Order: sequence, then C-alpha cells, then structure tokens
Amino acid sequence: MSYHYLLDLALILLSTKLLGMLTRRFQMPQVVGALLAGLILGPAMLNVLKETEFLSQLSELGVIVILFTAGMTTDLRELKNAGKSGFWVALCGVLVPLAMGTAFGWLAGKAGWLPGNTLLEDVFLGTVLTATSVSITVETLKELDKLDTKVGGTILAAALIDDVLGLIALTVVSSLAGEGTSLLVVLLRIALFFVFAVVAALLANRFFRWMIDQADGRNLRRYPVLAFVLCLLMAYCAEEFFGVADIIGAFAAGLVVASTPKAKYIEVKFTTLSYLLLTPVFFASIGINVELPELNGGLAVFSLLLLAVAVLSKVIGCGLGARLCGFRGDECIQVGTGMACRGEVALIVANRGLSMGVLSQTMMTPIIITVVGCAILTPILLKLVFRNKKEVVPQESGLVDRYREAEQLEYVSERLLQENRDMMKKKDEKEN
Amino acid sequence: MSYHYLLDLALILLSTKLLGMLTRRFQMPQVVGALLAGLILGPAMLNVLKETEFLSQLSELGVIVILFTAGMTTDLRELKNAGKSGFWVALCGVLVPLAMGTAFGWLAGKAGWLPGNTLLEDVFLGTVLTATSVSITVETLKELDKLDTKVGGTILAAALIDDVLGLIALTVVSSLAGEGTSLLVVLLRIALFFVFAVVAALLANRFFRWMIDQADGRNLRRYPVLAFVLCLLMAYCAEEFFGVADIIGAFAAGLVVASTPKAKYIEVKFTTLSYLLLTPVFFASIGINVELPELNGGLAVFSLLLLAVAVLSKVIGCGLGARLCGFRGDECIQVGTGMACRGEVALIVANRGLSMGVLSQTMMTPIIITVVGCAILTPILLKLVFRNKKEVVPQESGLVDRYREAEQLEYVSERLLQENRDMMKKKDEKEN
Repeated sequence: MSYHYLLDLALILLSTKLLGMLTRRFQMPQVVGALLAGLILGPAMLNVLKETEFLSQLSELGVIVILFTAGMTTDLRELKNAGKSGFWVALCGVLVPLAMGTAFGWLAGKAGWLPGNTLLEDVFLGTVLTATSVSITVETLKELDKLDTKVGGTILAAALIDDVLGLIALTVVSSLAGEGTSLLVVLLRIALFFVFAVVAALLANRFFRWMIDQADGRNLRRYPVLAFVLCLLMAYCAEEFFGVADIIGAFAAGLVVASTPKAKYIEVKFTTLSYLLLTPVFFASIGINVELPELNGGLAVFSLLLLAVAVLSKVIGCGLGARLCGFRGDECIQVGTGMACRGEVALIVANRGLSMGVLSQTMMTPIIITVVGCAILTPILLKLVFRNKKEVVPQESGLVDRYREAEQLEYVSERLLQENRDMMKKKDEKEN
Repeated sequence: MSYHYLLDLALILLSTKLLGMLTRRFQMPQVVGALLAGLILGPAMLNVLKETEFLSQLSELGVIVILFTAGMTTDLRELKNAGKSGFWVALCGVLVPLAMGTAFGWLAGKAGWLPGNTLLEDVFLGTVLTATSVSITVETLKELDKLDTKVGGTILAAALIDDVLGLIALTVVSSLAGEGTSLLVVLLRIALFFVFAVVAALLANRFFRWMIDQADGRNLRRYPVLAFVLCLLMAYCAEEFFGVADIIGAFAAGLVVASTPKAKYIEVKFTTLSYLLLTPVFFASIGINVELPELNGGLAVFSLLLLAVAVLSKVIGCGLGARLCGFRGDECIQVGTGMACRGEVALIVANRGLSMGVLSQTMMTPIIITVVGCAILTPILLKLVFRNKKEVVPQESGLVDRYREAEQLEYVSERLLQENRDMMKKKDEKEN
C-alpha cells in the first residue's frame, strides 16, 4: 500500500496556497502563484513532484468542477438584464481574439517559429485566447472604487456572456478536430446537445422543485449531491452521445443548476470542494507538465508576441463592442482593458487541445506565459486607463451585489460559529 | 482520454444518496444505504461498477478525511468535561469487545469455521469491534426526546473517548503485524509518535494564532487549506517515520486542529468535502469489494454470531463501566445499548487489516453484515430499553449543543442565501 500520494497532495496544497498568498500581496491573482508552485515543484525545477495517474485524474475532475461552478455563476436570467452592451462587448471580444490568434499562429507558422503547425492548431490557439477571466479586474476596480460604474457593470455582464461564447467556439473547433467530421455534422450534434440540455434543464427544475416541496426544509445535503450527479451525467452524455467535450456538458449542467431554487447554496458547497482539493491539483498539474528547457530564444519571442496579441485583441475587440453601444472613447479602452485578462478557462481549453493532439506540448509554455503575463499586466494597465477619472457617477448593479454575496456569507457563518464558541466557553467557565 | 470515471462517480453518488434516503426513511442510518448501493452496483450483483485505480485511491483519501473529521469533532478540552463516567464506559466498552471478539475468532478457528486463521487475525477481529458509531443513537434518542439526559450525555462523552481508545488499539495491533516487530519497539514508536503529535499541536496552534493576528479577518480559505496540509503531512509522517497507520496520523491532526481557534469553521468545510465526494466513494468501494457468492451456510451462521458478539460485548462492557460509576441497572443497559452501534471506523479498520494481509477477504462479508445488523438493531433495542421511562429529568449538556451546532449553521446560511435571492428578485422586478 502506497501512501506517497499524501505527501504529493500536501506539497501541492501548501505550495499553491503560500505562493498564491504571496502573489496576492503583489496585487496578482492567486492563479499565478498556483501555476508557479507547479512549475517550481515539478520536473522543470525542483523535481520533487511528478505527475501521477491519481493527480492527473483528480485534475481532470477538477476541470469538470471548475466549469460546473462557472456555469452555476452564470444566471441566464441575469444575462437578459446584462443588456445589449454586455452582449456586443462579449461577442466582439470573442471574435476578434479568435481571428487575431488564428492569424498570429498562421503568420508564426509561415515565419518558421512553429514547425509543422496546421490550420487547426492556429484556430485552436485563437480559441484559447477567447475566454476572459474577470476576477483580477473585479479586484482592481474594487480597489479603485470603480466597480459600481457603467464600465464596471458592462465588464461583469460581458464576462458572463464571454464564457458561453468561448465554450461554443471550443465545442465547434474541438469537434472539427475529431476524425475529420464535416462542419454540418458538428453543428447538428451541437444543436442536438443544446436540445438535450434544455430538456435536462426543464426536468431538473421540476425535479428540484418537487424535492423541495417534499422535504421539510432540513436534509440540505441532497441538493449539492444531486447537482453533482447531474453535472457528471451531463458531462458523460456530452462525450458519449454527442461527441461534445465533457467540460461543455459540465458547464451546461451548471447553467441548469443556476436556474433551480437552491442554486446559491449548491454553489457555495462546490466552491469549497474546489479550493480545498480540486483547483490546486489542477493548477499544480498544469505547472508540472511544463518543460522549461524548451524555452529557447525563438519561443521566448513567440511567447511575448502571443501575450501582446492576447491583450491587444481583447482591447480592440471589446473596445469595438463598447463603441457600437455608444460608449465614449476612453470608456471603450477601459472596458477593453478590463476584459484583457485570461485565466483558468484558457488553460483548460489549452489542456484539452493538448490531450486531443491538436495543440503541441511546445505551445503550453507560451500559453502559460500569456496567462501569467495578462494577470500581471491587467492591474497595471487598468490603473493607467482609470487615472484622473474621478467624475464617474457610481451606479448600482445587481451583478456586483451578487459577486459579493458568496464572499459575505463566509464571514457571516464564520462569525456565527465564533460567537457560538465564545458563548459556550463562557458557559463552561461559569459552570466550573 | 477516458471519461468513463464520470459515469462511475455519478452512479456512486446517485445510488448512495437514494439508498441512503430510503434507509433513513426506515429509521436506519445512511451508512447502511451507502453500503447496499456498493453491493448492488458492484460485481456481487448488477456488476455495473468495478473497482478502478482512481476509485480506490479516492476512497483511501476518503478514509483519511473521515478520520481527520472524527479527530476534529473530538475536542480534548471537552474530554475533561466528559468526566469519569464517560471514561469508564469508553474503556470497558473497548476492552470487553476486544477480548470477546478475539475469543470468538479463536473459538471459530477451533470449530473449523475460519480455516487457517492466526491469533493476529483473531485480535484484529476484536479490534474491529471496538469502535462505536454514535450517530444512530443520537438520532434515536432525539426522536425519543432522551438526548438531554444523564444517559444521553454519558453516551456522547464515552463515544468521544471510544474513538481515541479504539485507534490506540488499532495502532498497537497493526504495528505488531508489521515484519515481526516486538511489542516494546511498537510501544516505543507509538510513544515517539505521541511526542511528535504534541509538538505538532503546539506549533500548529502557535502558527494558527499568529496567522489570525496577521490577517484582517478576511481570506478565510487559508485555514481549511492549511489544516488539510497538516492532516496530509501528519498522516504521511506517521507511516514514513513511525510505522504508525496513516489514518492515526490523520486522526491526530484532527485533534490538533480541534484545539485551534478556527476549528469549527474548518470542520464545516471538511464535512462538505466528505459528503460531496469522498465518503460516498469510500462506502461504495467497500460494497464493491464484497463477494457475495462466498456467503455459504457456515459463513452466514458465523456472521450472525459475530453480530451477536458485537452487540453483547458493548452492552456488557459499557454497562459494566456505567455500573462502576454508580448508574442504576436499567440505566447501565441503556448506556450499553446506546454504544452498541458500529459504523465507518469499524469498516476502515477492517479495510486496513485487509490491505495489510492480516484479515482475509472472507472476513469482510461478516463484518459488513455486523455493521449493517448493528445499525438495524440499535434503534429497535434503544426504543425497547427506554420504554416506560418517562420520569427522566432533562439535563443540559454542552456536548449535545455542540452536536447540533453545525447542523443549525447549515439552515441559517441556507436561509440567508434564500432571503438575499428573494430580495434581489424583488429589486429586479421593481426596476423592470
């Protein structure tokens, strides 16, 4: 019986947390620290952690749960409220990076930087660049006290839609990669999966409401467990019956759960499952799989150029979308900069491409550098574009409230426990 | 890339939850349902679930987390308050089943029921019978409105100490099984591990208090994550440096965490990790590994006798302990019956014996039957021994309060989320 996995997990949790706290102190997101932890402990540097079967399976499950949670935070009813500015910013913010990423890959291929890359690899590179990660922007805007503004609200709304559009792009591109199927078959499959998801949503909603009517308000555990079952089944069915990536199924299941009455409660539980085990393993395992020695001069230049393409394409795309909705020029740049950051979804898409054989292992290093680079650049750029803009009128936003809600619940429940404990201690002391 | 594990996990979560809800409706604990789920889906019956590398690794991690949580709920300061009656009930309640279990195994060997069993196997069988599971008793006493009594308080206190004593027995017995080491070396190792655990407790306490002073009351996630690191490291060190079972290390880490200021908050988080993923996988995987065809007539009789020994030995042992502390005769029987139930710890100890080669695979079926049988019998017997006992004076107990606390927090936080959601919906409607 081997118990070495205990040490592996301990190292992963400790290093991702410590480096995450460190990067946070320097105004960078914890994602950067978690990636660095994997890089430092992995074969690229210290070589104390190796990818095991267990870790890679846990990290796959982690990806499922991350996208399930992402789906749950995407309330479709809020998408309607997000309005047309959110939609246009998201749409242009997906199409322009997709196009620019593809073009960049193609040009790099022509220039001899990417030996033997195919058109599909170029398109996949573009797909990796589509998904925005909004958490760093939210933190920075909070700090600048600019979250409750028109620009802040638009960014949050666009980021919601962005996820959905980015995953649609992934579905189309990754389905095309499978055994030379035609675009028509792929679109048909996606349409069928969409019908399946809608039916699942209706049934799940009815089932959850029925269960809540049956129950006496106690026994809350069944809701997260059954939501997890739905997530796993939809992820499985997506692959098995529709040829669609399992992560898309998990995201769709998240959307379904978001529409049920216990959505927030379920989300809080999955957040715990994520940060306590699955997400650190996922990030560490990305870092472990990087082979730094490959980073020669050519690849380094390619990485920096990719980073530039990533930032510029979002600023241009999202700025264009904002312009179409009548934003002022400086506001367009603010929106675009706020959408420039990439995060876990980009890494998940890249990982997916790697395991499908569409992206080469060599591409992972530039992509990780891009994700880390965006995370470092975004707060700096945001502070720059929001300079001397003190006249902005604060604006209330349901999306902003919702973003804070889960966080506050943690403090409230921690307080409750603490007070209960203090009370009981006093009682004990009185009795003795 | 294989995605079949998604279906496996979905089946496990769904079947353990549904059967758990079903058995609960029949006043039986969810453990019974979860075990049945594994039996039904596994090779013993439907054969749709097979043990995979991933499942068995997850289930091992589950065992670690179950014992870590068990340790966390064992507040050492409360052990002092538990008083001498709790201690004597627990001590006799561990020694008598250990002795009777060993004797029974030896007699069964003599009678030819257990071909080729060794003395060590007999002692291990006794060890399996030591650990009480108190949750069913608590539920039944609540229902009978007898939890806030002297008997109820003594049972809760004894169950706390019982865990610690049972695990000490396991440590000694399982260390003896390793490469023919002498009892002296084993005791020395355990003493060293005890010193290590005390030092770890002091350091961890100081570190946690330092962290809480540093922090601004936000960023609560670091506490559960660091507690998990402590658990994994102590489990690893127990095996690597002291030759003590990893689960003992995890339990000791739980005790350490219980003494830190954020103990309750951390415990709530690990409860989520448990019920949402790890515990169902553990129970299902126990059920999967049972081979029913082995259940011939002899083994069936042996199983029923083992069940009788399990119940009687606890009633005798704990009753004796209660008697020593001046309980009335009927109260002694109530205490003994309340301690008769076995649960996950018995299964974990048995599983450990199996993987060490000390228990044979054949023994798993009788042990599972005993656990299930105890769970079915306990509520029935408890109602019997509490009949016509309406004159009991209710008594306040800190232990009882604490048992309810975590449960209540769930309802409170669920309510908060619900109200927040309703409020936001109203706001949205007003705005539109």
